Amino acid sequence: MAEALTLHEDPRSGNCYKIRLTAALLGLPLERRLYDIMKGETRTPAFLARVNAGGRIPVLQIGEGAGARFLPESNAACWYVAHASRLVPGDRFAEADMLRWMFFEQYSHEPNVATLRFWLRFVGEANLSPEQRAQILPKRMAGAAALELMDRHLAGHAFFCGDAVTLADIALFAYTHVAEEAGFGLGDHPHVQAWIARVEALAGFVPMD
Amino acid sequence: MAEALTLHEDPRSGNCYKIRLTAALLGLPLERRLYDIMKGETRTPAFLARVNAGGRIPVLQIGEGAGARFLPESNAACWYVAHASRLVPGDRFAEADMLRWMFFEQYSHEPNVATLRFWLRFVGEANLSPEQRAQILPKRMAGAAALELMDRHLAGHAFFCGDAVTLADIALFAYTHVAEEAGFGLGDHPHVQAWIARVEALAGFVPMD
Repeated sequence: MAEALTLHEDPRSGNCYKIRLTAALLGLPLERRLYDIMKGETRTPAFLARVNAGGRIPVLQIGEGAGARFLPESNAACWYVAHASRLVPGDRFAEADMLRWMFFEQYSHEPNVATLRFWLRFVGEANLSPEQRAQILPKRMAGAAALELMDRHLAGHAFFCGDAVTLADIALFAYTHVAEEAGFGLGDHPHVQAWIARVEALAGFVPMD
Repeated sequence: MAEALTLHEDPRSGNCYKIRLTAALLGLPLERRLYDIMKGETRTPAFLARVNAGGRIPVLQIGEGAGARFLPESNAACWYVAHASRLVPGDRFAEADMLRWMFFEQYSHEPNVATLRFWLRFVGEANLSPEQRAQILPKRMAGAAALELMDRHLAGHAFFCGDAVTLADIALFAYTHVAEEAGFGLGDHPHVQAWIARVEALAGFVPMD
């Protein structure tokens, strides 16, 4: 019997949503345990000691009680949930290429698009530190470059790794479909827009809260 | 017969070194094609059209000629090279946990430790933009937090995912063992220092150029 999966999450986080969406597309049950990161609920001694010493969410909990195991990092959690499913290509190159887009997401997309969304929508521009303020323009440019690269790739592909949805699409969808909340316009990215519609039309799709 | 592997790289890059080290530990041949990123050699029209539209290295080339395939993102390239090898755990949780540390490396370690190394050692502090200068302190703090988290984890483990080396160690070793070039002292991180020595003692180990 499969072990119970519990997601430690803040529902406003796109990184947490990735894991919910992965489970939903596969029809797998997933318990949810909610935290408010704005109130420091993932920095308590209990959270740091048991769930994640890094103080971040999402964390995927596998099993319950004393034997429970904890897996931080959104894309690693998606990988665990989607084990041996149709969301991971069977071909050696395609599998590595899927991970390529997932690493791209964490390095070139999330730190720009997600961070600007967090700062502008949840923290508020007036509350940013001078160091954060100085990063708005570089993050704006780097995020736009990531969206442009995605748009050029999607001009020739229905999904990131070919004709079928994989974890690469789930990882990149999470913050791309709310990029306007970070101040990025998608009007110049028609292929990204069409891909967003394709993801939203998938059987089992669930929206972000 | 296995397809030829060619690494498009700048030898000063730790991200490129990861792939060389993976191949070396497994005894696999790897051709090297060298670029100087300081001279913009990965931003030429030919490179962007054929090797990587993202203009970055490393890129792992699989095969040759018209049928060659190209894989950007250092950790995805390591994944491809190490397919079905002893550097990837067979257990479902351990495999996901290895990816967890590789995503941690790209999100919480490389943008801080590697970027500061690049700025301070190769670009030169006097040549940084005001936006880059404003990021030195936040990157210093975030990089120190990443090294501290690694040290606490390594207090109880010989390698990141237990008793044997995996790609997680290779990914994190690349910039950690030259963290002092980025201004990070390792004197307060004895477990990281001992782990560096363990990696350097592995059969087949090759140093960074």
